[in-house]
Amino acid sequence: MEVPRTVNQMRSAAEAARSASWAQPTIDTAAGIRSVMGPVGPVVVFGPNNFPLAINSVSGNDFAAAVAAGCPVIAKGHPLHPNTTRLFAERMHEAAEETGMPAGFVQLLYHIGNEDGVRLLERPEVKAAAFTGSRGGGLALKAVADKHGKPFYAEMSAINPVFVLPGALAERGGEIAEEFFGSCTLGAGQFCTNPGLVVLVKGESADAFLSAAAEKFSAAGPMTTLGSGVTDHYEQSLRTIRDAGAEQVARGSEHDGPGFRAVPTLLKVPAATFIGNGKLLTEAFGPSSLVVLCDDVDQAVAVAEAQEGNLTGGVYSATDGSDDAAYDRIASVLRTKVGRLLNDKMPTGVAVSRAMNHGGPYPASGHPGFSSVGLPQSVRRFGALQSYDNVREPRLPAVLRDKNPGGVWRDVDGTWTQDDVAAA
Amino acid sequence: MEVPRTVNQMRSAAEAARSASWAQPTIDTAAGIRSVMGPVGPVVVFGPNNFPLAINSVSGNDFAAAVAAGCPVIAKGHPLHPNTTRLFAERMHEAAEETGMPAGFVQLLYHIGNEDGVRLLERPEVKAAAFTGSRGGGLALKAVADKHGKPFYAEMSAINPVFVLPGALAERGGEIAEEFFGSCTLGAGQFCTNPGLVVLVKGESADAFLSAAAEKFSAAGPMTTLGSGVTDHYEQSLRTIRDAGAEQVARGSEHDGPGFRAVPTLLKVPAATFIGNGKLLTEAFGPSSLVVLCDDVDQAVAVAEAQEGNLTGGVYSATDGSDDAAYDRIASVLRTKVGRLLNDKMPTGVAVSRAMNHGGPYPASGHPGFSSVGLPQSVRRFGALQSYDNVREPRLPAVLRDKNPGGVWRDVDGTWTQDDVAAA
Repeated sequence: MEVPRTVNQMRSAAEAARSASWAQPTIDTAAGIRSVMGPVGPVVVFGPNNFPLAINSVSGNDFAAAVAAGCPVIAKGHPLHPNTTRLFAERMHEAAEETGMPAGFVQLLYHIGNEDGVRLLERPEVKAAAFTGSRGGGLALKAVADKHGKPFYAEMSAINPVFVLPGALAERGGEIAEEFFGSCTLGAGQFCTNPGLVVLVKGESADAFLSAAAEKFSAAGPMTTLGSGVTDHYEQSLRTIRDAGAEQVARGSEHDGPGFRAVPTLLKVPAATFIGNGKLLTEAFGPSSLVVLCDDVDQAVAVAEAQEGNLTGGVYSATDGSDDAAYDRIASVLRTKVGRLLNDKMPTGVAVSRAMNHGGPYPASGHPGFSSVGLPQSVRRFGALQSYDNVREPRLPAVLRDKNPGGVWRDVDGTWTQDDVAAA
Repeated sequence: MEVPRTVNQMRSAAEAARSASWAQPTIDTAAGIRSVMGPVGPVVVFGPNNFPLAINSVSGNDFAAAVAAGCPVIAKGHPLHPNTTRLFAERMHEAAEETGMPAGFVQLLYHIGNEDGVRLLERPEVKAAAFTGSRGGGLALKAVADKHGKPFYAEMSAINPVFVLPGALAERGGEIAEEFFGSCTLGAGQFCTNPGLVVLVKGESADAFLSAAAEKFSAAGPMTTLGSGVTDHYEQSLRTIRDAGAEQVARGSEHDGPGFRAVPTLLKVPAATFIGNGKLLTEAFGPSSLVVLCDDVDQAVAVAEAQEGNLTGGVYSATDGSDDAAYDRIASVLRTKVGRLLNDKMPTGVAVSRAMNHGGPYPASGHPGFSSVGLPQSVRRFGALQSYDNVREPRLPAVLRDKNPGGVWRDVDGTWTQDDVAAA
């Protein structure tokens, strides 16, 4: 599943670099001013432990976006998968040589400590950075970048709340429970978009949903994680959530063999306990989820209001319209809290689409206007707006000259077109 | 000059709000995902002392952009022009009522101290802020916004270097000197884009240029500033520049009447003294400029490399091609240092154009990818990327539904179009 995604990302990046579509070339013929997003400069990419193929620092989405924007990349390899990263770095190095990129356009640093990461970010030559990982690590690096006025794009954390409304529960609760379990345990739950919170209104259908889900979690075996750090952090987070008042509903069979594993775990908590209790917003990165049980739709709206910024939020509603009023109330609150709003669908699939948002309001990400996945916004993160005022036409970058032999989409006097600029 | 600009900005904002063109509606029919920039939430606008009509906090460019993005605005009035600000606030309040905006959509705070500005920015309800003013004030507020993960767009300082190449000097030095003096003293030099640095290669033509410019500065009278703070800061900055090794070439007649004035002042310094001397990068906000005299083009390139991030940078070159090689070297360095690159034109005119960039690399502004003037990037500052995944078509915002009755430009499957989405 991950390999095709990497390939798609590289294809997207290549498309972006070729078409310059991300750069929003803009031509104002009357004012004699033209602008385009140019490369911001050298970018440092800090990759996460999960998704060593798709989101790694030296061939993943941040890397591809920076290169597509024309920025050299210094990648910090994640210690959990040094060999995978090295293999990708070698392929990228070959690709850079084959395509005639300047020497050193792609660099990989190994086994450097956090303080070296900070020093790297502080270097005046570095102009921006991207990070995917924990909130603690992301915020520490963000503070350094902010101090030096450098754009810093981070995807840091999310619990991705999913609201299953009463009509949907009654209509197809069993089916949704199955979908939920699949999404929550996919890749041992090591997805940024893992559904870590499920919100239900109490009742017979909610009980049935909870029983069906509990059965699946109980029957599951331990799942392989990317390292001992992931496993340890997972169990620690589960303790935090339990200590904050959540009750364990179901847990799969414990791990008793070699390797790093996480045990699927389902918890529940009354909405009254959840609301205002920040510890219950803890992300337990792994195959677990917390079910919040509400007395009524009003309380479900309050649970939506209690969310921090998240990557995604979802609502399941009945097909017969019986949930429509509740949907409107909850979705309008969730819309301000999440980057991607879903209907009748679990959040773990992140399509490589122009319309995708894999970011979200702080602290899910560092800037609400961008996404690390999806053109053009992923590439635009590494762009600097460059305006040309009265600059002689032959001196303009090719993409801003009158002739448009590549058929790049350009905003000419407020109209999007692939045509040449007509001679005055 | 300022009134029409305000009107243009409001027209641009109205156009943006109507057309939603800034919001880049994106539809991926195959993936079932659609996205658009939605309002980020309440915005605080800190306006500058200059441009009370065009860049004020309650009807100027930042205000207009935030409102166009759908964000309520809390404006902090600048103490130097409380009555002008009040008059605008009253008009904006009327406009908000007439157009049926929610109560409190536009608010103005008066006479609040810096610590109250910080508290305002810290409020969880505030989601972003815009600032135009001094570097010190901007960086202090930016640190607060950064800490809370809020986008902060600031235009803080610039000296706007202008390179006049040898061929251009020989060809039309007198004409350029006149243009330079006009730009430097326009509005008593109280423009963010004032040409505060002129770079010349030594020689007869440079001497002639300097003499012609000195004559104009000497003949000029004192010019009215916006307040005593501006005048005091101007003289203080000139002292800093002189103390750092610059020599005064010419100064207009001193002020001896009532009111706040600034005396036009021309200074010069050898490039060898300039390079590496950070104090000589001080912005003297007012009708002054520092001429840097280089031994040769190599040294002029080094002067370009010594620049901080700036709003603008300009190069004058000969029409006969004799400066072309020097142009290429200097422009390629300047391009990475400035938001707007000009040819054969002084920087003070800031056209309200879709292709305008009134920002630039840090510390000229807080983010290199945006501008406070010019659609769509000015409005997009206050946008949050909002993706809809599998959301039922009637629940989408109007601008993302299949029908496109307003003819909004949308990216549908990678093609810009004003058409409806064809039924599947």
